[in-house]
Amino acid sequence: MKNIRLSALQDNGRTVVCVGHVKVGDGLCIVAGPCSVETEKQTIETAQAVREGGADILRGGAFKPRTSPYAFQGLGLKGLKILKKAREETGLPFVTEVIDTRDVPWVAEYADVLQIGARNMQNFSLLKEVGKTQKPILLKRGMNSTIEEWLNCAEYILDGGNPDVILCERGIRTFETYTRNTLDISAVPALKELTHLPVIIDPSHASGRVSLIPSLSLAAIASGADGVMVEVHVNPSEAVCDKDQALTPAQFSAMAGKMRSLHKFVEYSL
Amino acid sequence: MKNIRLSALQDNGRTVVCVGHVKVGDGLCIVAGPCSVETEKQTIETAQAVREGGADILRGGAFKPRTSPYAFQGLGLKGLKILKKAREETGLPFVTEVIDTRDVPWVAEYADVLQIGARNMQNFSLLKEVGKTQKPILLKRGMNSTIEEWLNCAEYILDGGNPDVILCERGIRTFETYTRNTLDISAVPALKELTHLPVIIDPSHASGRVSLIPSLSLAAIASGADGVMVEVHVNPSEAVCDKDQALTPAQFSAMAGKMRSLHKFVEYSL
Amino acid sequence: MKNIRLSALQDNGRTVVCVGHVKVGDGLCIVAGPCSVETEKQTIETAQAVREGGADILRGGAFKPRTSPYAFQGLGLKGLKILKKAREETGLPFVTEVIDTRDVPWVAEYADVLQIGARNMQNFSLLKEVGKTQKPILLKRGMNSTIEEWLNCAEYILDGGNPDVILCERGIRTFETYTRNTLDISAVPALKELTHLPVIIDPSHASGRVSLIPSLSLAAIASGADGVMVEVHVNPSEAVCDKDQALTPAQFSAMAGKMRSLHKFVEYSL
Amino acid sequence: MKNIRLSALQDNGRTVVCVGHVKVGDGLCIVAGPCSVETEKQTIETAQAVREGGADILRGGAFKPRTSPYAFQGLGLKGLKILKKAREETGLPFVTEVIDTRDVPWVAEYADVLQIGARNMQNFSLLKEVGKTQKPILLKRGMNSTIEEWLNCAEYILDGGNPDVILCERGIRTFETYTRNTLDISAVPALKELTHLPVIIDPSHASGRVSLIPSLSLAAIASGADGVMVEVHVNPSEAVCDKDQALTPAQFSAMAGKMRSLHKFVEYSL
Repeated sequence: MKNIRLSALQDNGRTVVCVGHVKVGDGLCIVAGPCSVETEKQTIETAQAVREGGADILRGGAFKPRTSPYAFQGLGLKGLKILKKAREETGLPFVTEVIDTRDVPWVAEYADVLQIGARNMQNFSLLKEVGKTQKPILLKRGMNSTIEEWLNCAEYILDGGNPDVILCERGIRTFETYTRNTLDISAVPALKELTHLPVIIDPSHASGRVSLIPSLSLAAIASGADGVMVEVHVNPSEAVCDKDQALTPAQFSAMAGKMRSLHKFVEYSL
Repeated sequence: MKNIRLSALQDNGRTVVCVGHVKVGDGLCIVAGPCSVETEKQTIETAQAVREGGADILRGGAFKPRTSPYAFQGLGLKGLKILKKAREETGLPFVTEVIDTRDVPWVAEYADVLQIGARNMQNFSLLKEVGKTQKPILLKRGMNSTIEEWLNCAEYILDGGNPDVILCERGIRTFETYTRNTLDISAVPALKELTHLPVIIDPSHASGRVSLIPSLSLAAIASGADGVMVEVHVNPSEAVCDKDQALTPAQFSAMAGKMRSLHKFVEYSL
Repeated sequence: MKNIRLSALQDNGRTVVCVGHVKVGDGLCIVAGPCSVETEKQTIETAQAVREGGADILRGGAFKPRTSPYAFQGLGLKGLKILKKAREETGLPFVTEVIDTRDVPWVAEYADVLQIGARNMQNFSLLKEVGKTQKPILLKRGMNSTIEEWLNCAEYILDGGNPDVILCERGIRTFETYTRNTLDISAVPALKELTHLPVIIDPSHASGRVSLIPSLSLAAIASGADGVMVEVHVNPSEAVCDKDQALTPAQFSAMAGKMRSLHKFVEYSL
Repeated sequence: MKNIRLSALQDNGRTVVCVGHVKVGDGLCIVAGPCSVETEKQTIETAQAVREGGADILRGGAFKPRTSPYAFQGLGLKGLKILKKAREETGLPFVTEVIDTRDVPWVAEYADVLQIGARNMQNFSLLKEVGKTQKPILLKRGMNSTIEEWLNCAEYILDGGNPDVILCERGIRTFETYTRNTLDISAVPALKELTHLPVIIDPSHASGRVSLIPSLSLAAIASGADGVMVEVHVNPSEAVCDKDQALTPAQFSAMAGKMRSLHKFVEYSL
């Protein structure tokens, strides 16, 4: 790949993306929260739970790209205001998805990190638009995208003038049906040799099964990932979307402890 | 699938989309033209060649969604003006891709048909925006999308108030490398039993090989497709993009004749 | 590909495989019959029905490679004797699968064509063994195999001394779930430019849906295939396996007529 | 899945497969050695190197299933005699692939573990034959096989009377080309909830790249795998096959040390 900026080294050769006081790419970063912002109560309770459980950044969707036009499409501005309030209550910065070029400027005023979702990875107009903002971008891999295509999308953002890109592997589409997608764990070491950008993984969308998430999160850390992003809901069975992959606060807390412990071991004792 | 509008029958139970005097879904529709609008000369010469060769609609890209940010991104407005001039010279209506919600209103003033490309199939904001226009929409299948997901995207447009959607199968991503993608020919009869919308196929992007395009086009017609969309360039070796899959005018003309002949046989004698 | 024998031309440059009086690769060849030989009555009635419907060759499985060890595994020798009787009653030669190197010699005494199934395409020991026989081989494509790998498997048989190989495309495994597999129609023209061997398609296994089989069969013929192989059962709802993809004799007969008619048109009038 | 034997619990609910003094499924098992047995010198030197590096079991192929009939097919009996000698010299038991039902009885007299390769996973005749032996079976996942299909193949062996099956995930075929295959790391925790059989992973075939193997091996251990199987060659650049994925003895030794250390941490401190 002949990209210009992806091969440009920074600092010690790797990019560290600052999200408030959190340094993504330096130590372990845990992102957690609900799939969708449903209500103020649900969002703030979940935010408090994940902060107590050990999260560094809150996640939550206000604009939901849904397969069907008749499914819940998100609360929009109202959702962003709830996320802002959750940040005030917990001190956690938050990441939220943006899906329309016209929304980028004002969503960027609310959010700490803008997410480009898997379905929009090759929405080049959107990539150019977020490249103009000053906010870090969490770029999810398209479910059918090669690593090379993904890095070219990161390049769109970097080329636009925004150096703060976090790559997020969230599973690719294969023939296997036991899992929702297939987590491409090899992408972690592959990206470590192809780019200086931080890499996190999303085992919730990759597997679609609560029971597999802890093992996959530990695998990601052992493979060298800079972080993990998971879905947590105070009451998974009542979640508006993705209820089969949402952890309870207790499950999240137990898992986060193991992740911190494993990360420390890998970093200092291996 | 429980979509509302896709199962709503019209006329004789099927949708016919009118593009100028061309009726897509009633008889065989041939769409042809260059991948990109490069120059006025190249575009008009190609338009004249495909009209003489038997095309009903001209295709040509003014906004090109490219894997790399450093590749040719299209001529934009200038390209649309060239396409408009080509329409004046040849009488052929044209289809062109739109890739940004902000561009939809003004691109719709130029184009006869708005194309949603494979990479934007699940750009739901864009689908909602084109759903508000009065222009027919050519909705390409995402290269990793199931038929069900694709129909849900059509539903976004129909639900927005625009009934004129043409579905275009352009190959899905598989492990096979001899072809650029794998043409899912089964999608044609599958869609005929799942929806009333017209279905065309794009063997150029599906195969990526000139030598396979005539056979695949005939196969599409025999399977029941309402049309075929192919890339034609007056000088393929000098095409800015997709040169390996562009037909010469002579190749196109020979193929179009066979397609018309086969379609007539299938329609009236089989 | 640097294969030796696949590029060796014969006659007019293409291989014609003789199966009794049937010439596969010269004209249209229709292979039809039940998935499994279940009883003498079912097999002979189906054989008579497909002969009347227009089949050239009977198909039927005596050894069934089944996903589960607890599923019906076929009648074995008893099944072959029934197929032999069906041949005597109808005059149709038959193709049947062989799945063990040890069975090749004696199965070859019964069958007119030996089938290598998709799951055994890369069972190289089996390929070498059938390469030693004097019987034509129907080599199905593995559901995850590239065209290049498939041709290398044909090469194993040719290299063993057996020149009579018929290639059969039967769908590849993709993410699409509406169809059982995805028929790779592009393989037909691709093989026509890569090899001199005859190519047939199996729309029954490719689609897994009776409703799609006629359209796919016509598409195959229009794309240049030398034949079609389909599953037919006198009473599909009682079939021991693959009941969703078995045609009734009436459906088969209607389809076969259209196939003959289309083939003649494509051959002489296009 | 309604398999009978896979759900039958043993001991503490999990199967431990004894290979000489090595207990697969109880502690970490490391399998290492060359892709192919090429010469006595190469095999014995590699065997000594991997024993010193920390391997528990030697791997090496005497029968090689190769894509092309003109590629090296393995040394056969001569190769088995070399492996036997390597066992005598190093004390390491060895695993080797068997590819023909007729070879099973005599190969089983040499080998400590019989391997069923990915291409033969659904060679049901072979599965039935190895099910009759008293030797442990290493069952690789087919590169296009679902977890459910894979477990059904294990069931063929168990149903034949052989309880000693080790499952080996070796990457599945996807659209990604940076890696040779895509390691399905989710299969590890998935199998832990679906079956009592031990699970190892093969990062060599999964990635096809030496640089990714250490990270993937650590990921496998963190995810709960019972072992890892890797290709090691005393001189990778001269390997007859798979040279891009063969570790040097020094690379193997460094990696094995980290694996032991990580396994101990995961087992006792997490």
